[in-house]
Amino acid sequence: MFPMQHIRVIGLDADDTLWHNETIFERVHERYRALLARYHDAATVDRTLLATEKRNLELYGYGVKGFMLSAIETAIELTHGEISAGEIRTLLELGREMLAHPVELLDGVAETVAALARSHRLLLITKGDLRDQQRKLAKSGLAAHFAQIEIVTEKDRATYETILRRHGIAPAEFLMVGNSLKSDILPVLALGAAAAHVPYHLLWAQDHTAEVPVAPGRFFELVSIRELPALLREPAS
Amino acid sequence: MFPMQHIRVIGLDADDTLWHNETIFERVHERYRALLARYHDAATVDRTLLATEKRNLELYGYGVKGFMLSAIETAIELTHGEISAGEIRTLLELGREMLAHPVELLDGVAETVAALARSHRLLLITKGDLRDQQRKLAKSGLAAHFAQIEIVTEKDRATYETILRRHGIAPAEFLMVGNSLKSDILPVLALGAAAAHVPYHLLWAQDHTAEVPVAPGRFFELVSIRELPALLREPAS
Repeated sequence: MFPMQHIRVIGLDADDTLWHNETIFERVHERYRALLARYHDAATVDRTLLATEKRNLELYGYGVKGFMLSAIETAIELTHGEISAGEIRTLLELGREMLAHPVELLDGVAETVAALARSHRLLLITKGDLRDQQRKLAKSGLAAHFAQIEIVTEKDRATYETILRRHGIAPAEFLMVGNSLKSDILPVLALGAAAAHVPYHLLWAQDHTAEVPVAPGRFFELVSIRELPALLREPAS
Repeated sequence: MFPMQHIRVIGLDADDTLWHNETIFERVHERYRALLARYHDAATVDRTLLATEKRNLELYGYGVKGFMLSAIETAIELTHGEISAGEIRTLLELGREMLAHPVELLDGVAETVAALARSHRLLLITKGDLRDQQRKLAKSGLAAHFAQIEIVTEKDRATYETILRRHGIAPAEFLMVGNSLKSDILPVLALGAAAAHVPYHLLWAQDHTAEVPVAPGRFFELVSIRELPALLREPAS
């Protein structure tokens, strides 16, 4: 099987793997539904917003700013233009709050990342707004543990291939850790590298996938990031 | 003096150095002023928008999405909330048009970049939205000429230091080319590298600087990017 002791480099996802993110979006969604409650039920609001986000994803990419633009567009659409400028200003304020939000590390992250950095080379691999992700990393107190930071527009197989090539990493040496099967696990397994899935209690609708990874000895389902150091010490099974 | 024949690596700015950008913003500004002409004169609109952009720069960073959010905020402020949802929808459409805009190369860029790529290692060094810059590069047809792409949040001395260090480039081997004295020239000269300024006929207000570079033999003022190949062949003067 895949010998975990050969892993030299660990890639870590950021949002909802190192720090809380979807909880912040969820709180904003609640306020967004409340703002539009006079016009539509919550399910319609959620469904329409998601459709707008999907439609704009190619142009806007991931991140808070694109989300806010889609939220404003959806609010205008759902209210047939009746939403007031004051309410749109409230949406803009919501967006700035999200961007200025404190970074809250997930349980066990601070000590685990510090421990892993002593034994492995760590890469942060995340998608989203460049400035927003850099700010969160700076606020997280974790920046010094990472040898490289990769902020990318899409986490697919080609992206991971490029990153591994650029840093001279063989797939057999690489383990990716993250909360999204679609973005952190499946494309990495497809390359022949290892991947550890640490689910977060919320998952962004765009990251849902029905695919179940099949990669014996290379795919690991963890409950907490705290399990990583022990996993990396495991001999080949 | 600085021997240009020692230059191994050329950094190129993107917006308004390789392709038109400020002209697109300027056309949007015109439509923005027209939209608000019932409320305020053009100078007030420009001044207020610039102030909003400055205030939000730390949170939004550079790029079209942040610009759009600031434009919506300014429109609400300048109309005391009287702007209609339909007008805000028009602003959102303007933003999407900007993002979907074709990439128009500046005169001489296609052949000069191709020629430089045969003799030098080329880096693209630009700030802005990650996805937007990647899309523009893909549309430009120039991507294959660049050994590396660096999309950064700020182009200051620390950023250039990090890039040179990461790619193992000595300042004496590096020439940066761009249209902004503040972002492309001054921080690079401060590191001891060379810089060539190719002014664009428009300059974003945030990039204005009163500083005049003093770096004999390392600073070059060009009229067109076409002058670069000859400059690089010049012996030490």
